Amino acid sequence: MKLKILPKGLVLRVRRGERLLDSLHRHGIPLPAPCGGKGLCGKCLVKVVQGTLSEVTPIERKRLGGLLSMGWRLACQTRVLDDAVIEILPLRAKILEWGFRVDMPLDPIIRHVRVKISSASLMLHDLGQLNADLKNATVSLSSLRKISLLRENCREVDMVMDLEAREAIDVEEDKGAIYAISVDLGTTTVVASLLDIRKGTREAVLSAYNKQLRVGEDVISRIEYIMRKGDRGLIELRALLVDTVNNLIRSLLEIKNLAPRDIKAVAMAGNTVMSLIMLGVSPTSLGVAPFNSPIIGPYVVKARRLGIIAHEEAYSYLMPILGGYVGGDVAADIIASGIMERKCALLIDLGTNGELVLKKGEKLYVTSCAAGPAFEGVGISCGMRAEEGAIERLWIEEGQLRYFTIGNIPPRGLCGSALIDLLASLRRLGIIDSRGVIKSELPGVEFIDGEKCFVVIRGSVSGTGHDILLRQSDIRKLQLAKAAIRAACELLMRKAKVSAEDLEVLYVAGAFGTYMDPENAIDIGLIPRVDPSKVTFIGNGSLMGCELFLLSSKARELMKALIKRVRHLNLHLESEYTDLFIKMLKIEPLDVL
Amino acid sequence: MKLKILPKGLVLRVRRGERLLDSLHRHGIPLPAPCGGKGLCGKCLVKVVQGTLSEVTPIERKRLGGLLSMGWRLACQTRVLDDAVIEILPLRAKILEWGFRVDMPLDPIIRHVRVKISSASLMLHDLGQLNADLKNATVSLSSLRKISLLRENCREVDMVMDLEAREAIDVEEDKGAIYAISVDLGTTTVVASLLDIRKGTREAVLSAYNKQLRVGEDVISRIEYIMRKGDRGLIELRALLVDTVNNLIRSLLEIKNLAPRDIKAVAMAGNTVMSLIMLGVSPTSLGVAPFNSPIIGPYVVKARRLGIIAHEEAYSYLMPILGGYVGGDVAADIIASGIMERKCALLIDLGTNGELVLKKGEKLYVTSCAAGPAFEGVGISCGMRAEEGAIERLWIEEGQLRYFTIGNIPPRGLCGSALIDLLASLRRLGIIDSRGVIKSELPGVEFIDGEKCFVVIRGSVSGTGHDILLRQSDIRKLQLAKAAIRAACELLMRKAKVSAEDLEVLYVAGAFGTYMDPENAIDIGLIPRVDPSKVTFIGNGSLMGCELFLLSSKARELMKALIKRVRHLNLHLESEYTDLFIKMLKIEPLDVL
Ligand code: FES
Ligand code: FES
Repeated sequence: MKLKILPKGLVLRVRRGERLLDSLHRHGIPLPAPCGGKGLCGKCLVKVVQGTLSEVTPIERKRLGGLLSMGWRLACQTRVLDDAVIEILPLRAKILEWGFRVDMPLDPIIRHVRVKISSASLMLHDLGQLNADLKNATVSLSSLRKISLLRENCREVDMVMDLEAREAIDVEEDKGAIYAISVDLGTTTVVASLLDIRKGTREAVLSAYNKQLRVGEDVISRIEYIMRKGDRGLIELRALLVDTVNNLIRSLLEIKNLAPRDIKAVAMAGNTVMSLIMLGVSPTSLGVAPFNSPIIGPYVVKARRLGIIAHEEAYSYLMPILGGYVGGDVAADIIASGIMERKCALLIDLGTNGELVLKKGEKLYVTSCAAGPAFEGVGISCGMRAEEGAIERLWIEEGQLRYFTIGNIPPRGLCGSALIDLLASLRRLGIIDSRGVIKSELPGVEFIDGEKCFVVIRGSVSGTGHDILLRQSDIRKLQLAKAAIRAACELLMRKAKVSAEDLEVLYVAGAFGTYMDPENAIDIGLIPRVDPSKVTFIGNGSLMGCELFLLSSKARELMKALIKRVRHLNLHLESEYTDLFIKMLKIEPLDVL
Repeated sequence: MKLKILPKGLVLRVRRGERLLDSLHRHGIPLPAPCGGKGLCGKCLVKVVQGTLSEVTPIERKRLGGLLSMGWRLACQTRVLDDAVIEILPLRAKILEWGFRVDMPLDPIIRHVRVKISSASLMLHDLGQLNADLKNATVSLSSLRKISLLRENCREVDMVMDLEAREAIDVEEDKGAIYAISVDLGTTTVVASLLDIRKGTREAVLSAYNKQLRVGEDVISRIEYIMRKGDRGLIELRALLVDTVNNLIRSLLEIKNLAPRDIKAVAMAGNTVMSLIMLGVSPTSLGVAPFNSPIIGPYVVKARRLGIIAHEEAYSYLMPILGGYVGGDVAADIIASGIMERKCALLIDLGTNGELVLKKGEKLYVTSCAAGPAFEGVGISCGMRAEEGAIERLWIEEGQLRYFTIGNIPPRGLCGSALIDLLASLRRLGIIDSRGVIKSELPGVEFIDGEKCFVVIRGSVSGTGHDILLRQSDIRKLQLAKAAIRAACELLMRKAKVSAEDLEVLYVAGAFGTYMDPENAIDIGLIPRVDPSKVTFIGNGSLMGCELFLLSSKARELMKALIKRVRHLNLHLESEYTDLFIKMLKIEPLDVL
């Protein structure tokens, strides 16, 4: 029986009925399995490209949720029954570039429309007379120019219609594939995918650090930069962002051997600050109370006006800013998650800013809180981003800390998901109390530089040669971050009169959130106390929402209607918030108040 | 009693009750009066800027029609009753830059709209919520950028709304004046006017030769150039046209000390070829049978996309191409003339191409014919354009040819209006017969270079030192030109089942047509045999129509509806046309067939 492994193309001989994880490990393929194949860590993800595998298990259903429909399986739960092709992606790629996308009918934003030309003249005044799809549609200048070059006996042309902008952006033979670009404008990382929107497939995906990182880690640093440097600073940061996006697009085009003119639409989602900078609109009002966004809503403009590489007449769509710091990334999360189909559900996008969406009936309550970069590993002694050598997951086995690092190399630090695991584990071991205070005179607890610390990893086994420490002050920072998020949750739930039991689903979005352990997150009180099986990770919802926008008219309709249904709460103006915040500092599974 | 004369600013002392023409001539001001002050030639035009003059006479009402409402008077029919300010324009300017404009309610295309900003955020998704005028409106990128720079306590902004494009093109304090540019894209001459559209006034007007003249006189030469040179030729001619327009706009801005950002909209009208070249669309299909335009209808695009100087977000509006050679200039004529308010009327735009519009009930029949440049004075031995030294009008007084030249200098040739007068006069004197044959052995008839000629002006008095001759071959060319136009008239009238008596008005548009004598034009059979008082000259209807488009929503509505009501006849496909053409070669007041 043959098993082909993409992207490398290795072909393995495997035994029928053998556990996929075992087949891979037997051939030395290093698929992570930190939970030891118990279906708990969700790390042994593979994507089935072709062939028959054993049926989906209840464990997979619980762990993977919507990822199942995209062909994802847990290798530890799956057996090979026949020849098959599977795909193994680098872990970082999985975190950033993949996510859950609710199923929607395929009805892409661009369509070839055949238009009859009466007496060889194109009637600009009412394309709808020629074709009902073109009612009130316009024709781009470059399409006009092409039309005049058609042979005199030509009686039909294929127009490339942008159905959202209602403009024929080009006139060209229908060659089957229609490409578009989806972009997640992250503060740290920008991710772009190339879609064949006609087939509804993703052809390639790439990510890169946001070049703006050189002026600071979080959005606040970007705002301050612009406050300091004024218009020049804005132009500079805009150029860095556009440059980051364009480099990704260029690489995506190279992979599929395409030209800029092949990109017929671009959808982008970012937090409010990234969205504003992309538009060249100053975000400085977000730097001072009451932290308003100067504009609210979606924005459509030709990609070339923004300097984004695409067809010269292609439109770029910026997902709507919903209010304050709640930006287009959250709008995209909302669309991608499927929360719109729930009666009552909560969505948390965990990042430097925590953004929250609570759906109850027809209403969407949204808010954002400044969690700070602690859960991105920034500002924490042992913290680091989810890069090679970062401990991504950590658990106790037989009284011992066990862990798993990205890239399977000696650990250099802990990324966000492991920090949650660590807090939960230390609580369980009784090393910290609910106030977050490290108890003295326990194994692993030491005074270093006059501060109480817990030694997570000894220098002898770490990748740095130094001890990996969690300091008392680190715990404080993590407590502040988690209290900020949790208090915002509680405030929304109070406003909407929703209790944790009412939540059908608790969606978690964002790079760091994607691989966090829901039970640990509940145990430390980061997220409300729901049945852990209700926690669904949607990954990079921002990218997924943009993809759906390009692929489905249903998504586009939802996106357009969104802003009218949203009620944005400005925490800064909510007097209860401070109270809740203080209560939520405790490291324990806090109950709804 | 003081009379101030603009544009020079001279102040004359005049006698109360004195005829204005006499006052001017007494002071040596050379206002033309070829008919000797009988109210027949319509040449003694002055514009009243301020002050009281004698009442409008029936003669003026007949001669001036709609020009009256714009303040025009005939100096030979007007007496000064009090201090007054009048304006005397150079004759060429009058021909090209002024015209008749039907009265329409002022409701300009651009309006300042005050928008409340809720919690200092501008809601992009539904500006209509903020202000009913903004329903479905969008906000330009540069407006967005400005909004973010408003002070935090700002709760209202003034948006500069383009009501036609439904876009807020700018955010700025309402300073009263709103400027727009109207352009007549003529094959020979481009005319541009600067309007304060809020007040509805024309602030300045300028004209310049179309720089494309270097590749040929008429549209055919431009098409052939592009056929020969291909895309590069198109780009080149486009650049020449844009350059001509931009030079005019720059000069207009200088006159009023304005900046490009002050121009909030641009309306342009040209024949089909000029319109296509402006858009960068190849007009070559108009060079071969069946002479179709590749596109039909109006076009709207940001001015900067076309390279036209204006506010960076301002829109440019190109009046609709109606079919074949019937372009936006004719659409503008239609709007400016007021023909839409008539039950049955004919409009003739006399130029290198003759364009015709016949309105009957709800329908508009339009067509164009290739008259050739004969009536522009091109290709005729004694012909010349309406420049200094051209005889513009010619008549017989006491058996003698009398004439009047532009600039009052010795004659160098005849322009179109005088050529019509000459043909009519020669017929009356019996020097040519109805077939156009010059009779031998009559005074003034000579054989020169083996060809029968009529000596119009002897070299001893001409401005060139040479005889000004009308050759037999010249007469043939004029016959061909007039037959082409007249046959097209007849064809339209046949199709619509309209006779000359049915016509309420016969509108004549176009630079050369403006000062032609209606009786002479009827006598040689150039235009249908109507009561000469029904002939109304609308001058540069192309420019006027654009101005109305900018000034009045009624004009904009009419313009948009136009294309649906138009029936374009392609003479090339009408088998009767050749027949009619041959019949119309005769130089006599031909009756409707
Ligand atoms: S190894 Fe499969 S879920 Fe942990
Ligand atoms: S001089 Fe006044 S109309 Fe001729």
